[in-house]
Amino acid sequence: MSTQTTRTTQSRTTQRARRPVTVVPGPAAQVDVPLLEQVLLGRWADIRRSARALLADPRLHRVEGQSAAEHRERVLAQLRILAAEGDVLRSFPAALGGADDHGGSLARFEEVVTADPSLQIKAGVQWGLFASSILHLGTAGHHERLLPAAMSVEVPGAFAMTETGHGSDVASIGTTATYDPQTQEFDLHTPFRAAWKDYLGNAAMHGTAAVVFAQLVTAGVNHGVHAFYVPLRDPATLDFLPGISGQDDGLKGGLNGIDNGRLRFEHVRVPRHDLLNRYGAVAPDGAYSSPIASPGRRFFTMLGTLVQGRVSLDGAAVNTSKLALIIAVSYANERRQFTGPSVTDEVVLLDYAEHQRRLLPLLAQTYAQVFAHERMLETFDGVFSGAKDTEADRQDLETIAAALKPTSTWHALTTLQAAREACGGAGFLTENRLVSLRADLDVYVTFEGDNTVLLQLVAKRLLADHAKEFKDVDAGGLARYVAGRAADAALHRTPLLRVVQTLADGGDVRRTAGHLRETEAQRELLTDRVETMVAEVAAALRPATKAPRDEAARRFNEHQHALIECARAHADLLQWEAFTAGLSKVDDPGTRQVLTWLRDLFGLTVIERNLAWYLINGRLSAGRARTITSYVERLLTRLRPHAQDLVDAFGFGPEHVRASIATGAERDRQDEAREYYRRLRASGDEPVQERSAPRR
Amino acid sequence: MSTQTTRTTQSRTTQRARRPVTVVPGPAAQVDVPLLEQVLLGRWADIRRSARALLADPRLHRVEGQSAAEHRERVLAQLRILAAEGDVLRSFPAALGGADDHGGSLARFEEVVTADPSLQIKAGVQWGLFASSILHLGTAGHHERLLPAAMSVEVPGAFAMTETGHGSDVASIGTTATYDPQTQEFDLHTPFRAAWKDYLGNAAMHGTAAVVFAQLVTAGVNHGVHAFYVPLRDPATLDFLPGISGQDDGLKGGLNGIDNGRLRFEHVRVPRHDLLNRYGAVAPDGAYSSPIASPGRRFFTMLGTLVQGRVSLDGAAVNTSKLALIIAVSYANERRQFTGPSVTDEVVLLDYAEHQRRLLPLLAQTYAQVFAHERMLETFDGVFSGAKDTEADRQDLETIAAALKPTSTWHALTTLQAAREACGGAGFLTENRLVSLRADLDVYVTFEGDNTVLLQLVAKRLLADHAKEFKDVDAGGLARYVAGRAADAALHRTPLLRVVQTLADGGDVRRTAGHLRETEAQRELLTDRVETMVAEVAAALRPATKAPRDEAARRFNEHQHALIECARAHADLLQWEAFTAGLSKVDDPGTRQVLTWLRDLFGLTVIERNLAWYLINGRLSAGRARTITSYVERLLTRLRPHAQDLVDAFGFGPEHVRASIATGAERDRQDEAREYYRRLRASGDEPVQERSAPRR
Repeated sequence: MSTQTTRTTQSRTTQRARRPVTVVPGPAAQVDVPLLEQVLLGRWADIRRSARALLADPRLHRVEGQSAAEHRERVLAQLRILAAEGDVLRSFPAALGGADDHGGSLARFEEVVTADPSLQIKAGVQWGLFASSILHLGTAGHHERLLPAAMSVEVPGAFAMTETGHGSDVASIGTTATYDPQTQEFDLHTPFRAAWKDYLGNAAMHGTAAVVFAQLVTAGVNHGVHAFYVPLRDPATLDFLPGISGQDDGLKGGLNGIDNGRLRFEHVRVPRHDLLNRYGAVAPDGAYSSPIASPGRRFFTMLGTLVQGRVSLDGAAVNTSKLALIIAVSYANERRQFTGPSVTDEVVLLDYAEHQRRLLPLLAQTYAQVFAHERMLETFDGVFSGAKDTEADRQDLETIAAALKPTSTWHALTTLQAAREACGGAGFLTENRLVSLRADLDVYVTFEGDNTVLLQLVAKRLLADHAKEFKDVDAGGLARYVAGRAADAALHRTPLLRVVQTLADGGDVRRTAGHLRETEAQRELLTDRVETMVAEVAAALRPATKAPRDEAARRFNEHQHALIECARAHADLLQWEAFTAGLSKVDDPGTRQVLTWLRDLFGLTVIERNLAWYLINGRLSAGRARTITSYVERLLTRLRPHAQDLVDAFGFGPEHVRASIATGAERDRQDEAREYYRRLRASGDEPVQERSAPRR
Repeated sequence: MSTQTTRTTQSRTTQRARRPVTVVPGPAAQVDVPLLEQVLLGRWADIRRSARALLADPRLHRVEGQSAAEHRERVLAQLRILAAEGDVLRSFPAALGGADDHGGSLARFEEVVTADPSLQIKAGVQWGLFASSILHLGTAGHHERLLPAAMSVEVPGAFAMTETGHGSDVASIGTTATYDPQTQEFDLHTPFRAAWKDYLGNAAMHGTAAVVFAQLVTAGVNHGVHAFYVPLRDPATLDFLPGISGQDDGLKGGLNGIDNGRLRFEHVRVPRHDLLNRYGAVAPDGAYSSPIASPGRRFFTMLGTLVQGRVSLDGAAVNTSKLALIIAVSYANERRQFTGPSVTDEVVLLDYAEHQRRLLPLLAQTYAQVFAHERMLETFDGVFSGAKDTEADRQDLETIAAALKPTSTWHALTTLQAAREACGGAGFLTENRLVSLRADLDVYVTFEGDNTVLLQLVAKRLLADHAKEFKDVDAGGLARYVAGRAADAALHRTPLLRVVQTLADGGDVRRTAGHLRETEAQRELLTDRVETMVAEVAAALRPATKAPRDEAARRFNEHQHALIECARAHADLLQWEAFTAGLSKVDDPGTRQVLTWLRDLFGLTVIERNLAWYLINGRLSAGRARTITSYVERLLTRLRPHAQDLVDAFGFGPEHVRASIATGAERDRQDEAREYYRRLRASGDEPVQERSAPRR
């Protein structure tokens, strides 16, 4: 480990020395990198640091070029290393060898993505899904009997929820578990091909047991989806047990270190006591009981225990965006291409305005996501530790996770691709990591809840909150509200509001831009957009709530895109608010100044992206809208000298980044080439350029 | 081959039978699929059909899961199959065994991407770059002596232009070829690490020769970049020849069937006659001569002969988008998820408004690109056949290629990713092809001219055209022009134009939407945007043309983003114009109606994407802007029933698509599941849902 530490220190020094050569005129503000690093590491900084120290170990790193079979075996071996050395049980009860530390456990887990996303997800399947569902859906007997082997990976386990025919719509899965009071067993059965369990990690090869989700039927009543503990394979031979068969999902676009596969159950008998019965139990005679009377609420409570998957994918996606930006910004600060102001010196890529446009807004959003994730993790810790665990807290957590996981996973793909393109051909080489990380992260946008489906959950919650506001308003009030909306729409058509604003703005572009730089102005614009959009959709959908099913479905479908846009706007606001709150954690004035510019860049690029909405709805005049782009450009110029500091503050060393082009190699090449030409010019042997040569 | 044909026919029948089950109310317009297929195949329909027939051969298909080493050998073997059976010499002179058919040759080549993008690019390196540069940059002696072995792949060759330190900036490469009159040889040398040739197909393993680009120096004068034919390896042993060394680029994000590598030349002696001397020759005594006096024009003429690379990448990218949409639309027409209007029937994915939003605008843009590519290919054929080969024609061709190649390659990545996400977890499985195609196409956006660099070439051309317009205007006129712009800017700040429009529009949303549906209205909006943006940037940059170099560079950099936006707007217009012109090729009224909706969808989504610009610049009132989104939504509803026909008309069979989920397998699974539940309901044995069960 001492070698690792030395390498880290060297790297930080290298990175600090790698200042842009071209001096961009800018204010004197400087980033205090160690201080900022500490802020970004957040409440669980020590745990993240210790995880990173462990993850510097080459035994845990992806070896590129392995076959899928080799990669799968390597990741299984790594999983056992994590079990032995990785402090992976923090979230489990102290009584069972854990630490009852939910936030810390996820913080640690999120860092694993830097070693290999396959290892992160394999670990997520084992501890976050398989063992965790025994813990959260089972009761004391299950904990004693089943958890130790799941926690130690003595039993690698699958989480058999998804079916070929049903992914995000878990409630509609086809697998049935029908209770037979004669034998006190459930008959677990896959009735048709679409009901095969599918895409399950550990199912193709390594899993010797699974938690299987099925429709629990007893005494002729379907009580909905419940979880069952089911042995899959003989641990010695790894042959399937009787009645169980499966298929390997084969190669995938990424994450090939995981043995995803399909499972089929043909009348497999499951003992009554292997129903994980915390939220629903069956007595020997077949009588069903549950602490939660409503089948709907019971279902969502069971699924709610699995929110940690979404929370941790958010954190892992943000960490991957950090890696991408470290690579692209470091390279862009060294790589030169085309001459500019000087005839002899080529321009450093990050001095190009377009290169700043491509990378720095992504950096700003990544910062916003770091702060947003930290807030969510604190909420998660409050709920799971029981410190703040009301029904409202849980619902908030689920909504936040449903908003942030789509945002950060899509952002990671966008950032990895922008970084790859910003590095040109070098970015396409596997040795520079961007392409493999992108391949692995791809599926993050559709698993653990398809992003588009999750955003609809957020939108439904926004509508429900909005509706609550007029729960106590009588019919007259409601009518007034609708009338108010109509008046508002008329206002939009003849944009008086905007005309007023145009006149008030006058020609003073500076003051206008200054206004948009103010925190309250950004907040107002971002908040107003969410509220107005939700109110509009709510008004349009209100008739649907009383319409027949088909009419209601048609109306909701008509507004599906608008609902998703509401959710996106809400997610933007969540990130912006978290970033703004994060500014107060920074005492150093220079660092705070730079971070404030970065927050402004995030806020204004969100507004710029939705500029048409602000114009159409009279929230911004054309004159003010014009200033946004120029202010964004000014912010890019201001932030450019601090870009390296801002990625250095992520605190990853070269043992985590592991990209050849982010090691200083490019600077060495550029220096050698420049030195060659300098000497050639000095020597007097430099060939004359044809256009300057005397004509013969 | 008869088996293949049968499979194609079966598939077409299957696809026709795969009509959406849910009936969406829509007009009676029907697409005549065979007719549309013929239109889309264009002028070289027969060649494309014969290429597709050959490419149905499994010997030419990618085998997933091969190691990079196996894949490389397979692709080399496939290259030899193409050489023997693939009619690959169409573009070469008849005297040398070719057909002097330039457009047909590229049309054929573009189809190869369906077999394996690695094969396409390996073929492109061999015939499109290596042999082609001997043909276009060499003279008769080279053609006789070197071309036959290059054409037959007896000599697999590398195209050694790019260096580690210089990609798009070819003029700045570091490799030198210094003429030595004593021995009548060039001394080919790599002076520093950044000047190693890099990313070259055939360089890591298979290439026994290369066309090497270097700065030609003779008699103390550097005449700029020229091409040299250089043997690399002993054909028997494949050992490097003396003075030549190299490295394997190793694994890449895709295209791993190609052996990309690096080359270093240490004072390698190249005989004088191996300079490819069409555009620049050196006499035995070292005297340089060229038919093109200007070094700048000579350089661009030499590079211009290579425009076919960009043209064919555009075509290949469009073909890949077609494959992605066939897969995603076919699956979306079969896959069901979540119940909607009916309690028992789940909704077919493509009936969801958001799913239509995700896929159909991409389909519209793909159609636009099919027509735009066909136009460009005709221009290319005119130039290279000599039928229409003025300097202006060549410049037009280069500008069009620089505009379309970025657009279609980025579009292919967007489309492949949208298709992959629209197919959920199934889209992530390699067996469904989307992930591998995306991995392969990734590098298309940065090779053969980085997309961002190409768009700047387009912008420079737009500026030059714009400037020409006032070449004959005197200083007074110019001043008036500038004054006119200023007045225009003032108008924007107080948007009188828009206020007028708002009043004129009144409340008649239908009429407004109708207006935007008109071809001329769309043309005006799209054209006006390009012209206005170019004029604005030109006005802002005019002072820079007379400023000192550093000041000029700073100004251009300040407007770099705006310049790129101009180029994008121009590319949008090119595609829209091509699509609009394409409508006239369709005589069948139903087909034409559907295509017109599709063209409208393309035009209006482009306008919707840039809506803020139209609002800020007073081109659209807020009221009219609002109608765009609702009209886009109406178009999606209209087009939805025709989506399958529109992808079927691409004319690819299952032997080209090769995706498990686009074979009808999903429909079979859905039918089986629905039948199971139907029987269960009919049997009376269906368990009661808990919420409907009598309380005990």
